[in-house]
Amino acid sequence: MYPIRLIVVGRPKQESILSLEKHYKKLIKPLIRLEILELTEGKGQGERQLLDEASNLRNALSAYKWKVILDAGGRTTDSEGFAKWLGSRLDLGEHMAFAIGSSNGIHSILKAEIKERMSLSQMTFPHDLCRIIFLEQLYRAMSILRGGSYHK
Amino acid sequence: MYPIRLIVVGRPKQESILSLEKHYKKLIKPLIRLEILELTEGKGQGERQLLDEASNLRNALSAYKWKVILDAGGRTTDSEGFAKWLGSRLDLGEHMAFAIGSSNGIHSILKAEIKERMSLSQMTFPHDLCRIIFLEQLYRAMSILRGGSYHK
Repeated sequence: MYPIRLIVVGRPKQESILSLEKHYKKLIKPLIRLEILELTEGKGQGERQLLDEASNLRNALSAYKWKVILDAGGRTTDSEGFAKWLGSRLDLGEHMAFAIGSSNGIHSILKAEIKERMSLSQMTFPHDLCRIIFLEQLYRAMSILRGGSYHK
Repeated sequence: MYPIRLIVVGRPKQESILSLEKHYKKLIKPLIRLEILELTEGKGQGERQLLDEASNLRNALSAYKWKVILDAGGRTTDSEGFAKWLGSRLDLGEHMAFAIGSSNGIHSILKAEIKERMSLSQMTFPHDLCRIIFLEQLYRAMSILRGGSYHK
């Protein structure tokens, strides 16, 4: 089974976020190989910064057959639906990468290029918190697929 | 303006969750008075525990004109929609309480009694994380209402 890659921009400043990330990575470890790639924030400001980040994200995503952008405006699903979707992709043995933008989001150009946009919630969350929520949902999905007792 | 009350069941075990809660409480403080009421977990197990918790939650909610249960199956909205809804309730000067269940959820009896059920996401999140996400959304909503630069 290919590892799942999570591509993020920037490093969380809060110790508590890093600690929660570590917590979920540890839970995920026995269930699936997860690789987190941390890109640096884009150069410049505003539009220019977003374009720089989009270019780095595009490069990082290019090797993957399934590229998914996490975006509040994307397709919403419940945890069971996500698990089912993830399971079917894993069964096909496909290389998957998920991307979370910087605190400024993701440039609309890149959003238009990547067909698969998934939403963790209609609500807008801070990108650091999105990291944690995605890891928790990945752990939950893998538990559902493996028949664990975590999801109830 | 009446304070907003958040009623929760149980105390988070993770230091990182407590630290994030403190972080958001500090951000919210200048914007609106928030009171968090922490109920103890219900006695017994399974159904009995949920009924005990439902009874405690019912009591804690009884004094409030607007009672809202946070539940993955509730009404979803985006952050702007939540801010608009919250603003209209605050303008009416209504006493509001939000409730988050225990790690076992909220008994369906109580869910049926409380008409207003709000969802932070269609996805199921751990209740400790719901606490943080709700506080972050409350801060975001108040920033939107006050015209702050947090929400972009």
